[in-house]
Amino acid sequence: MTNLTLEEIGQRARTAETVLRTLPTIQKNKALRGAAEALLTHKESLLTQNQLDVEQAKNNQIAPALVDRLLLTETRIAQMAEGLRQIADLEDPVGEVLSMKQRPNGLMIGQKRVPLGVIGIIYESRPNVTADAFGLCFKTGNAVILRGGKDAIHSNNAIAKVLQEALTACQLPADAIQLITDTSHETAEKFMRLNNYVDVLIPRGGAGLIRTVVERATVPVIETGTGNCHIYVDESADLAMAVDIIFNAKTQRIGVCNACESLVIHQNIKDVLLPVLTQKLKEKNVEIRGDEASRSICADILPATEADWGTEYLDYILSIKTVCNIEEAIAHINRYNTGHSEAIITNDYQNAQKFLDEIDAAAVYVNASTRFTDGFEFGFGGEIGISTQKLHARGPMGLKELTSTKYIIYGNGQVRP
Amino acid sequence: MTNLTLEEIGQRARTAETVLRTLPTIQKNKALRGAAEALLTHKESLLTQNQLDVEQAKNNQIAPALVDRLLLTETRIAQMAEGLRQIADLEDPVGEVLSMKQRPNGLMIGQKRVPLGVIGIIYESRPNVTADAFGLCFKTGNAVILRGGKDAIHSNNAIAKVLQEALTACQLPADAIQLITDTSHETAEKFMRLNNYVDVLIPRGGAGLIRTVVERATVPVIETGTGNCHIYVDESADLAMAVDIIFNAKTQRIGVCNACESLVIHQNIKDVLLPVLTQKLKEKNVEIRGDEASRSICADILPATEADWGTEYLDYILSIKTVCNIEEAIAHINRYNTGHSEAIITNDYQNAQKFLDEIDAAAVYVNASTRFTDGFEFGFGGEIGISTQKLHARGPMGLKELTSTKYIIYGNGQVRP
Repeated sequence: MTNLTLEEIGQRARTAETVLRTLPTIQKNKALRGAAEALLTHKESLLTQNQLDVEQAKNNQIAPALVDRLLLTETRIAQMAEGLRQIADLEDPVGEVLSMKQRPNGLMIGQKRVPLGVIGIIYESRPNVTADAFGLCFKTGNAVILRGGKDAIHSNNAIAKVLQEALTACQLPADAIQLITDTSHETAEKFMRLNNYVDVLIPRGGAGLIRTVVERATVPVIETGTGNCHIYVDESADLAMAVDIIFNAKTQRIGVCNACESLVIHQNIKDVLLPVLTQKLKEKNVEIRGDEASRSICADILPATEADWGTEYLDYILSIKTVCNIEEAIAHINRYNTGHSEAIITNDYQNAQKFLDEIDAAAVYVNASTRFTDGFEFGFGGEIGISTQKLHARGPMGLKELTSTKYIIYGNGQVRP
Repeated sequence: MTNLTLEEIGQRARTAETVLRTLPTIQKNKALRGAAEALLTHKESLLTQNQLDVEQAKNNQIAPALVDRLLLTETRIAQMAEGLRQIADLEDPVGEVLSMKQRPNGLMIGQKRVPLGVIGIIYESRPNVTADAFGLCFKTGNAVILRGGKDAIHSNNAIAKVLQEALTACQLPADAIQLITDTSHETAEKFMRLNNYVDVLIPRGGAGLIRTVVERATVPVIETGTGNCHIYVDESADLAMAVDIIFNAKTQRIGVCNACESLVIHQNIKDVLLPVLTQKLKEKNVEIRGDEASRSICADILPATEADWGTEYLDYILSIKTVCNIEEAIAHINRYNTGHSEAIITNDYQNAQKFLDEIDAAAVYVNASTRFTDGFEFGFGGEIGISTQKLHARGPMGLKELTSTKYIIYGNGQVRP
C-alpha cells in the first residue's frame, strides 16, 4: 500500500463506490468467496506479518490478553475466511423496494434500499475486523476506509493487501477496501472530518475510542457501544430460572458488551434468591457488590458505592441493587444503563409488558439472558457492532443497517400545481 | 419562560420524555387539537408579540423578504393551528411492530417503533416552525427543545407559552416543548454538545446554519438540506413535456430546496429544445447561464462559469450544461448535486432505469418535476425537512423518521450455550 493522502484515499473510495453501487449480487458474492480463498492461500505471509506485530507488542510489554487479541493463527485465519463465505451466503439487502405507491396524480413513488456510499471504520487491535468489516461493507455495495490500531498495522496491511488482490482478480476496484497506513492521531482526526468523502463513521472498540470519535467527528457517527446491562428479578420471578439466567448473563463470557453487570432485585425475594444465587456465582468466583439490603442477607457481599451502578466491569464482578417495586427498578435501570440490553425475570404479565414498554434500551428481554444481543443470535448473520444510539440503527447492525434508501419516482409529465 | 440553564432544560425534557414515551395516541391527538385551539384563542397576544419582532427587524433595516418570513398574520396563525390538527389526523407510527420472528431456541424477537427521545431543533426566523416542530415531535412521543432565531424571539416565546399552557390544560408535561430563550452563540454551541440530554439535533435553515451545526455538534445531527437540483433532458425526451417540467421546476416557487437550478441537455436535442425553452422562460424573466454549446444556439444565454454548476441560486436563474450522452450527464450531476432531487426527461426505458440506479440523491425522478419532493406531495403529511444525508432518514422526514426502534424479546428461560 502506497502512502496516499486522505484526500486521495477518499477520492479513490468514491470512484470505487460508483462501481459497487450497481454491482450485481452474484458478482459481489463471487468476489467475497474469492477473497476468502485468498486469505487461506496467503496464510503463511499473513502469519509472518502478524508475528511482527506480536513481537512488537511483547517487546512493549503489552498485557497477555491484549497480545492474544492481536494474534493470528491458522484457525483464526480460517475463521476470517469462513466469515466472508457466510456473508456471501446472506441475502443482499441492496435493491429491495421497501414500498411503492401510486399517488392521486399518477406519480409512482417508491423507496429503494441503496448502499450508504463510503463507510469509515476506526478500530483497535483485532486484525480480524479488517476482513469482517470489508465483507459486510462490500456485500452492501459500500466502499470502506479502515483505520486500525497501530499495534496491528503489519497484520492489517497484509490482510488488506490480500483482499485488494482478490478484488483485482475479479476485475473489481481494489479501492473498495483501503487501509490508512499512517496511524498517527492527527491523521485519525482528519479522517473523522473527511465529510466530502466519507458518509458514515463507525468506531469499534472501547469506551475511550468511541468517546473520542463522537467528540471529534463531523462525519455522521454510529455509536457502537458499551453495555452496562441489568437484570431485574421481579417479585413473581421463577427463582431457578432467575439464577440460571443471571449465571449465564454474568459468566458465560465476561468481556463482552451484552454481559450482565448489575442485578436489580425486588426486596420481597431477596431472602430466598440471594443465598442460592451467591452460592452459584461462587463457582466462577464472582465478586458481588451490593447495597445495604442485600448485604443484610449475605455477609459475603461487599459494599457497593454509587460508582458501581454506572460501571461496566467486563469482569467477574456483579453489583446488586434492591428495590421496593418495578417502578423503582425501571427508574434505576433507565438512569444507569447505557442503552444496550436489559432483562426482567418475571411471571407477572403486566410487569413484563411494563418493562418492555418503559425501559429505554436497544434490546429489552423478558425471561432470557442479555447475552443474546448479537447479529447471529438475532438471525441477521454477521454484524458490524451493536448500536446503542437511536439514530439510523439500534441494536445489532447487520447488512440492512449498512444501507440507506432513496426515493425513485416514475412520472409521465407531472408538474406541481 | 424563566431562565433555566441548558442542563435544567435537558433534565426537564428527559422527565417529560418518559411520560410521552408511553402516552396513548388518543391523548396525544387530544392535546394537539387543544394546542391548535389555544393558538387561535390567543391570536391577539401572538400578533402583539410578533409585532415587537417585526418592528425590531424593520429598525435593523432587515430585507423586506426576511421581514415577511418573520411576520405573523391571522391567516398564518390559522395555518399553524390547522397544521397541528393535520398532525393529529395522521397515523401514529409509535408502537408499530415492524417484524417479529420466533428463533429456533424459542425466543420471540420483535422490532418495535419507539420515540427518539429528546429532539433539538435549531432554526432561523420563521416563527411557524415553533408550532410545526412541536406538533411533529409531540405526535411521535418526543420532547422537543427549540432554539429559534434571535429575530423571532418574542413570537417564538409567545407561541411556546401558548403550547405549554395547552399541554398543562390536558394534564400533560409542559416541558414536552421548551424554548431556549438565551439566543447567544455560546448557548447554541453548548446546546449542540448536550449529548446527555439530546438524542438528535435537526437544523432547519440556510446552508450556513447547517454547516455550523454539522461542524460543531457532538449530538447526532440530521442534515436537512440545500438542493442544487438538476433536470437532464435526454435525447429521446418529449420536448413539450420537457419544457413544461423545466418551467414548473424552475419557476413555480424559486426560493425552495426542490426547485431546479441547473439543466443538463443532450447535444442532439439542443437545437430544437433551446429556442422553445428560452422563449418560455422569458415569461418569468429567467436568466440563463450556459456553456459554449448552448450559447451557440441562443444568443440570449449568458456564459456560465465553473461556479455556476455548484450554485443553488434560489432565484430566477438557471444554468445549462450540454453533454454527449447519459453517462456524461450522470457524472456531471453526481459531481455537482447536493443529494436532494434530480430528474430525467426521457422516453428511453434503459436510460430511465440507468438514471434511477446511478444518480446518488434522496429523490430521483423520471418525467416529473423535482418540486414534488415534499412530505405532503409524497403522502406522508407534515415533515420536519428534507434530509440530504444518508444516515437514518433520506428525503422528506415525516413522522416515521422522528422515531427509533427497539428490540423486544419474549423468552421463557433461554440462556446462551
